[in-house]
Amino acid sequence: MKVGFIGLGGMGLEIARNIGRGGNELTVYNRTRSRAEALQADGARVADSPSAAARDAEILITMLADDRAVEDMVFGGAHAGEGAIKSLGKGALHVSMSTISVALSRRMAAAHQEAGQEYISAPVFGRPEAAAAAKLWIVASGNPDQIERCRPIFDVIGQGAFTVGEDAGAANTFKIAGNFVIAAAVESLGEAFALIRKSGLDVEQFLEIISGALFKSPVYQTYGTIIAKERFDPPGFKMKLGLKDVRLALETADATETPMPLAGVIHDHLLSGIARGRGETDWSGFARIIAENAGIK
Amino acid sequence: MKVGFIGLGGMGLEIARNIGRGGNELTVYNRTRSRAEALQADGARVADSPSAAARDAEILITMLADDRAVEDMVFGGAHAGEGAIKSLGKGALHVSMSTISVALSRRMAAAHQEAGQEYISAPVFGRPEAAAAAKLWIVASGNPDQIERCRPIFDVIGQGAFTVGEDAGAANTFKIAGNFVIAAAVESLGEAFALIRKSGLDVEQFLEIISGALFKSPVYQTYGTIIAKERFDPPGFKMKLGLKDVRLALETADATETPMPLAGVIHDHLLSGIARGRGETDWSGFARIIAENAGIK
Amino acid sequence: MKVGFIGLGGMGLEIARNIGRGGNELTVYNRTRSRAEALQADGARVADSPSAAARDAEILITMLADDRAVEDMVFGGAHAGEGAIKSLGKGALHVSMSTISVALSRRMAAAHQEAGQEYISAPVFGRPEAAAAAKLWIVASGNPDQIERCRPIFDVIGQGAFTVGEDAGAANTFKIAGNFVIAAAVESLGEAFALIRKSGLDVEQFLEIISGALFKSPVYQTYGTIIAKERFDPPGFKMKLGLKDVRLALETADATETPMPLAGVIHDHLLSGIARGRGETDWSGFARIIAENAGIK
Amino acid sequence: MKVGFIGLGGMGLEIARNIGRGGNELTVYNRTRSRAEALQADGARVADSPSAAARDAEILITMLADDRAVEDMVFGGAHAGEGAIKSLGKGALHVSMSTISVALSRRMAAAHQEAGQEYISAPVFGRPEAAAAAKLWIVASGNPDQIERCRPIFDVIGQGAFTVGEDAGAANTFKIAGNFVIAAAVESLGEAFALIRKSGLDVEQFLEIISGALFKSPVYQTYGTIIAKERFDPPGFKMKLGLKDVRLALETADATETPMPLAGVIHDHLLSGIARGRGETDWSGFARIIAENAGIK
Repeated sequence: MKVGFIGLGGMGLEIARNIGRGGNELTVYNRTRSRAEALQADGARVADSPSAAARDAEILITMLADDRAVEDMVFGGAHAGEGAIKSLGKGALHVSMSTISVALSRRMAAAHQEAGQEYISAPVFGRPEAAAAAKLWIVASGNPDQIERCRPIFDVIGQGAFTVGEDAGAANTFKIAGNFVIAAAVESLGEAFALIRKSGLDVEQFLEIISGALFKSPVYQTYGTIIAKERFDPPGFKMKLGLKDVRLALETADATETPMPLAGVIHDHLLSGIARGRGETDWSGFARIIAENAGIK
Repeated sequence: MKVGFIGLGGMGLEIARNIGRGGNELTVYNRTRSRAEALQADGARVADSPSAAARDAEILITMLADDRAVEDMVFGGAHAGEGAIKSLGKGALHVSMSTISVALSRRMAAAHQEAGQEYISAPVFGRPEAAAAAKLWIVASGNPDQIERCRPIFDVIGQGAFTVGEDAGAANTFKIAGNFVIAAAVESLGEAFALIRKSGLDVEQFLEIISGALFKSPVYQTYGTIIAKERFDPPGFKMKLGLKDVRLALETADATETPMPLAGVIHDHLLSGIARGRGETDWSGFARIIAENAGIK
Repeated sequence: MKVGFIGLGGMGLEIARNIGRGGNELTVYNRTRSRAEALQADGARVADSPSAAARDAEILITMLADDRAVEDMVFGGAHAGEGAIKSLGKGALHVSMSTISVALSRRMAAAHQEAGQEYISAPVFGRPEAAAAAKLWIVASGNPDQIERCRPIFDVIGQGAFTVGEDAGAANTFKIAGNFVIAAAVESLGEAFALIRKSGLDVEQFLEIISGALFKSPVYQTYGTIIAKERFDPPGFKMKLGLKDVRLALETADATETPMPLAGVIHDHLLSGIARGRGETDWSGFARIIAENAGIK
Repeated sequence: MKVGFIGLGGMGLEIARNIGRGGNELTVYNRTRSRAEALQADGARVADSPSAAARDAEILITMLADDRAVEDMVFGGAHAGEGAIKSLGKGALHVSMSTISVALSRRMAAAHQEAGQEYISAPVFGRPEAAAAAKLWIVASGNPDQIERCRPIFDVIGQGAFTVGEDAGAANTFKIAGNFVIAAAVESLGEAFALIRKSGLDVEQFLEIISGALFKSPVYQTYGTIIAKERFDPPGFKMKLGLKDVRLALETADATETPMPLAGVIHDHLLSGIARGRGETDWSGFARIIAENAGIK
């Protein structure tokens, strides 16, 4: 298939590489061009603009940091010229994989429909290592035929795809809520570890019990280890992006009139982390903020 | 071994039965005598008082609801007569399995030492089903030789035991912090499910993704199912006891100067649940309080 | 002076009336025309559109519910036609009295400057009764000469005006932070009253002590009485607008990297109030939500 | 009247001095004897023990830091010998002015009744300056005749006394709830000031508006000035005692099943302040913790 791909960050680069290796004809665009060129060895063509990446694509995939970046690339903006929607062909499909707001996803669905194009929302769960190993989980919503059309793509990047409804925003809501549940696990480990440390006990042993015996979950094992060993730098996913994800949860909560006090607690710890200068370290480092609030050096 | 056992609630009854079936000579006491008599079929003797249960025991196990109940049974009180500590023999060992405060555990360690007796703290993780299946996890602290002495008991009630230090309070701190992490998972599911519901989406499908793909954890599967299906009655573990556990976390946090805002959020939801008349339903029902706060009927 | 006035809600109507009575030549616009006509008896002319209200004005005042309403009226929109900025004369001054975001205030300042017009931000403190009695407090920021130009207006609507800087957003930040402090007083009264009630004691006597002896403040007296007597209907200021104000605080907090956990607590209570169907009652009614969370009927 | 007085801290010393100067025959006890001797110039006798202070008193007043100190002095303990209750005469009255728990107040009422003595609870509002100026507010509960008996004492130490019921715990609940409302005002000022600072604006000007125009309250003026100028050392009231007061609110909330999330937020800020080494500075310094959480140095 002819695939256009915009956004080659930590996640996007790995996903695009797997799509290219999966036998698709890949054209990529990234604001920092060198990351795009890294894919030339795998046969990808490098486009000069979002609209160039979209022009001949049957499927256009976007994988960007936040709402603003997606709006720039799709609708056009100072850095992005006229935007991908202008050049994408009739009947071509835009697959939005970014973690973005429900509102923007719905707005794109409407704009593509008006332009005679297709749109589905298909955010993914997994850190960059999972993306590299083609072990992502995809959550898709939109027209079922269009979701089906993506199946060959999903097969080369992930270990499974869930279809969660026809509303373009449904998949985004699932992704936002899912990320919140993961962030909550980090919050709980941060507080529990602080308590264990202030009690003079061993957090690695505590993690062994919590993770090995009780939860038996890769999420607790992965984040528990990062937090226990304070491996926040280099980041797998930056704190600034972690804050963006919790903001999306709080925005959705506000829009649907759903009080989420735990999301508020996490938000405040992330915000404090960024205010204290840790915005470029791993997002799970807000656990260190919790520790510092308890006087742990 | 001659084992005395005090406290035959949902957990204690199953643990005691497995100890009896494991070939030990069991003497049991419970305030409501009928629950003790249920073990006679398995060969247990029924004692008339805590001190009678303790008198000839090599190992005395207590498994009670809270600090007050443990204090009554061990030190004596209105319902419990003179208390087990009076009759327990020199060199005999008290194994405290209840989820109680660090302070009480240390106080008992000191009192038993003064009386020429032994004490270890050995709270367990697992719900009644796990106790019945001898699948508990035991976390023990105290004199290592005394912990070793309990090995045959631990083998017939659980799937493993962790030794976490010589301080009597260490195991209690681990248990309290571990329960907090589980309660935090329930809080996060409660908030995420409310968001999914208010967005008009399907919580069971959300759970399938969260539990099946991301967390792959029995904790999320068990509590996610209870909450999604609102199976809070009959309770596996009552909300009043869930509140007690979170109180223990907050007390320990306060004593060690560790701010735990998420523990505060959970506490307030549990307290609201009890104030609204749900104290006798399953503790995870505080997720329903979260839903009601979002206007879900 | 020739004054245009857009927005005749509970506050705007009283302010406009005082400006008209103060000897100014007043032209008013309101989406619901009947409220504008109510001012004709005082000599006001009724405009058919925002741009008509702005056309001949030396000073144009806007007093609207939220960012969206201000954007519609100033920049134009479905309900508002081409917007006031199009017809406002060179050198004329737009005085924004609404409680709006810092970002929108700055955006208007830039747009008016580009159009050769003037802009200051001048939100007010006070409920409708204070507006009627010309007892408002005005907080102004922007060009000092332009603030001075408004002095005759401020004199007929309030008891004093503070100048807080040249940045258009400064006055909005002061207003947002000030409203937050008031909302916090309501939250604290709500929680304290719930505690007093659940203790079987008399909230009116508690208020007498708190307000009469300790705080001696009109804020505590006014809101304490409303909450103690549960006079939430008819509203002085609707809960939906109260939520908007707290959202502004949280947005500003987020933009400036300032954790404000108390603002989060208030937000969740207001959101719960609206989710439970109280959005049209007085905003201080979130104190009743606090009471209900404690099981008070 | 013959008055015994136990506890000459920042508050107690000023109260006792005013009682002595009011023409009463005063016998004082304080653990650190030098503070008691400071009152000899005003004619007070210095007792060697709590029981010596109580022996001939018609009215015995206690003004101590917390529950534990009151228990020691009244019921006896390591530092306090046999305790005041042993020597207090039949029909003599114990007036408890300390900020203590509802439970302890009720327990003392029962113990004094059993001993043929009288007891009322009469905690006071006001900082040491107010105590020195005889400007305290007294909140009393218990037998109305006994409260009346104290009127001459109340007249020389305060500007008014409120009677709030016959239950010994009622006055303590009022005091605890009142202190919480004051602490909430500090929390709100701390968060608002952080927002103002992070916005690059002037907190003293903000305080002028909030306090001078809106609240017009001595509480906002006093604490706003302390926080704006960061005058936390020397303390008027130590952070460790501030934490105790909020703990009392949370304990009462827990006992009456009243969720108080704002009390939880304040608790965590105070706890963090103490964990970061500020326990001996003024309690309102938790506002500085809020600022530090926002990255303000």
